Amino acid sequence: MAKVNRQFRLTARPVGEIKESDFSYKEEEIPTIGDGEMFVRNLYLSLDPTNRLWMSDQDQYMPPVELGAVMRGIAIAVVEESKSPQYKKGDFIWGLLGWQDYALLTGDDFQNVIPLDSSVLPDNKLTLYLGPMGMTGWTAYLGLLNIGKPQPGETVFVSGAAGSVGSMVGQIAKIKGCRVVGTAGSESKCLWLKEELGFDEAINYKNYKPGLELEEAIAKVCPNGIDVYFDNVGGSILDAVLTQVNLHARIPLCGLMSIYNAKGPVPGPYNYSQIMMKRVQVQGFIISDYFMQWSEAMTAIAQWIKEGKIKYSEETVDGLENAPKALIQLFKGTSKGKVFVKISEEP
Amino acid sequence: MAKVNRQFRLTARPVGEIKESDFSYKEEEIPTIGDGEMFVRNLYLSLDPTNRLWMSDQDQYMPPVELGAVMRGIAIAVVEESKSPQYKKGDFIWGLLGWQDYALLTGDDFQNVIPLDSSVLPDNKLTLYLGPMGMTGWTAYLGLLNIGKPQPGETVFVSGAAGSVGSMVGQIAKIKGCRVVGTAGSESKCLWLKEELGFDEAINYKNYKPGLELEEAIAKVCPNGIDVYFDNVGGSILDAVLTQVNLHARIPLCGLMSIYNAKGPVPGPYNYSQIMMKRVQVQGFIISDYFMQWSEAMTAIAQWIKEGKIKYSEETVDGLENAPKALIQLFKGTSKGKVFVKISEEP
Repeated sequence: MAKVNRQFRLTARPVGEIKESDFSYKEEEIPTIGDGEMFVRNLYLSLDPTNRLWMSDQDQYMPPVELGAVMRGIAIAVVEESKSPQYKKGDFIWGLLGWQDYALLTGDDFQNVIPLDSSVLPDNKLTLYLGPMGMTGWTAYLGLLNIGKPQPGETVFVSGAAGSVGSMVGQIAKIKGCRVVGTAGSESKCLWLKEELGFDEAINYKNYKPGLELEEAIAKVCPNGIDVYFDNVGGSILDAVLTQVNLHARIPLCGLMSIYNAKGPVPGPYNYSQIMMKRVQVQGFIISDYFMQWSEAMTAIAQWIKEGKIKYSEETVDGLENAPKALIQLFKGTSKGKVFVKISEEP
Repeated sequence: MAKVNRQFRLTARPVGEIKESDFSYKEEEIPTIGDGEMFVRNLYLSLDPTNRLWMSDQDQYMPPVELGAVMRGIAIAVVEESKSPQYKKGDFIWGLLGWQDYALLTGDDFQNVIPLDSSVLPDNKLTLYLGPMGMTGWTAYLGLLNIGKPQPGETVFVSGAAGSVGSMVGQIAKIKGCRVVGTAGSESKCLWLKEELGFDEAINYKNYKPGLELEEAIAKVCPNGIDVYFDNVGGSILDAVLTQVNLHARIPLCGLMSIYNAKGPVPGPYNYSQIMMKRVQVQGFIISDYFMQWSEAMTAIAQWIKEGKIKYSEETVDGLENAPKALIQLFKGTSKGKVFVKISEEP
């Protein structure tokens, strides 16, 4: 087999914002596969804020990507050749397959992939497995319901609301009978949240100074306070939300995108004491904490998409060669819903 | 009735540390009581870090004490005269009775007192109802067990460990089969924790610079990490603990004594992101959240004291006139266990 495998490897740990030079491009020949091994072709590569964490060497929920290693990434792939009893040529899989055209799976690699069942797939779109039916959808569903425990009539607030996770959180909270308010970084995103996704209110946080101004803007659209805050960003929005939380509010802590690019230590919320005063629960989580409930999430979300209760937005970047640029762009906050790179054509 | 009621009223909201001039001394005549009312004589007045919060007008878990009002305080009292069907002369009660010799209870006041049952009292000491058998004991018991959920063999870390709540937390965690480590502000307190109360380790945090030095000191005595952090103080100890927490650690957030005297906004923990990375649960609580479990806590703690499994320390300040000074002293961190003011003799 003389195919060339294009790869991006991590060359430098980012300082502040990600730079293209943090990656290096390389071409490798694909080795032949041995017994129990499998060779897959990547179709779509997911871009996620957490990629920034993996590139750093800060204490995190997985080992950092080693310098010189292929950049870690979630992808959907098709099996091209298999000497594993578990998979056959033509099967679709999902997993940590890396920023590359092809992946050779050996030994423990199989623990990080799962087969995709196209029979449950609405709209016949494989890419749903990166968005609403994938890790971001499960994250929204399981974090919101297990930790947030939203009750009908409660106010659910979500930051990064136009993102892949946030947009799902808001729609699921609406299905559960809540008042839903989100923050996003542009007028067009806010319009999309309200007019397409059914959010009750959306705030363009860039219109308000952190502190009192932002607090007042939030108070205005949350007249009954905030019962659940699904936090994707941390920072000044978290601080403002803490001034508006109700007694016994729940904060599923999903992400801290506002500080991933920080160059040094970042102070935690100045209103941390409100966690005590209002007896708030903050619960950090990672989707893998809820492995056992994946199929529950999957079934529910598929059904909601089929019924038109959940809408989604996808942004496709064409070509693996554009992955570094696209990840940098993700942190500019200009995209709506799920962003992924198309690496090769579906069979 | 021409008795004189000595009182301390709140005159000024403290800026930074409490000053004696934040209180004003006043003498009042006691009014005669009407139907359904009750007149009690305060015996012991509890001093608690939370008094500092009540004096401020920051957003908190109860309304702040109004300027000019009698300072709020928990006390044990004996009924001197009763026209209420619930109580008779000679009964002992516990409640928010204020910084004064006598309290007249009318209407809603009765919601803030409970009768004391001396039949469950170990050592025949009424003052236990301010310490291990009182709010601080219940806070330790219910916060640790409901939120911390310590499992045998786990490491429980407690700050303010020589305080009235902290010293109970550590001993209850030992009873539950945990390794227990505490922080306190002097060598003699640390000795007391280890030699009298059975803590496995105790750290005098004043020996270490906040940051790396403190983190390393904690890491050394917590070789298996920290599973439960019972937080009474916040600040730099919280920050250091967050670098040592295990996956799925629990943080009952009971107090933030290190910042009550702050003059302006205080940054939250710089290591807040570890709450996400390690999927930590932070749960603020106030003892009144667990009203329904008071008798469970009371029964368990009384039994442990009788069996000698729980020890306690009391510091008595003599005379209501010394209450302001004693509260200021409480924040110097020189006392062990429960501090209270003796106002009058038991009958």
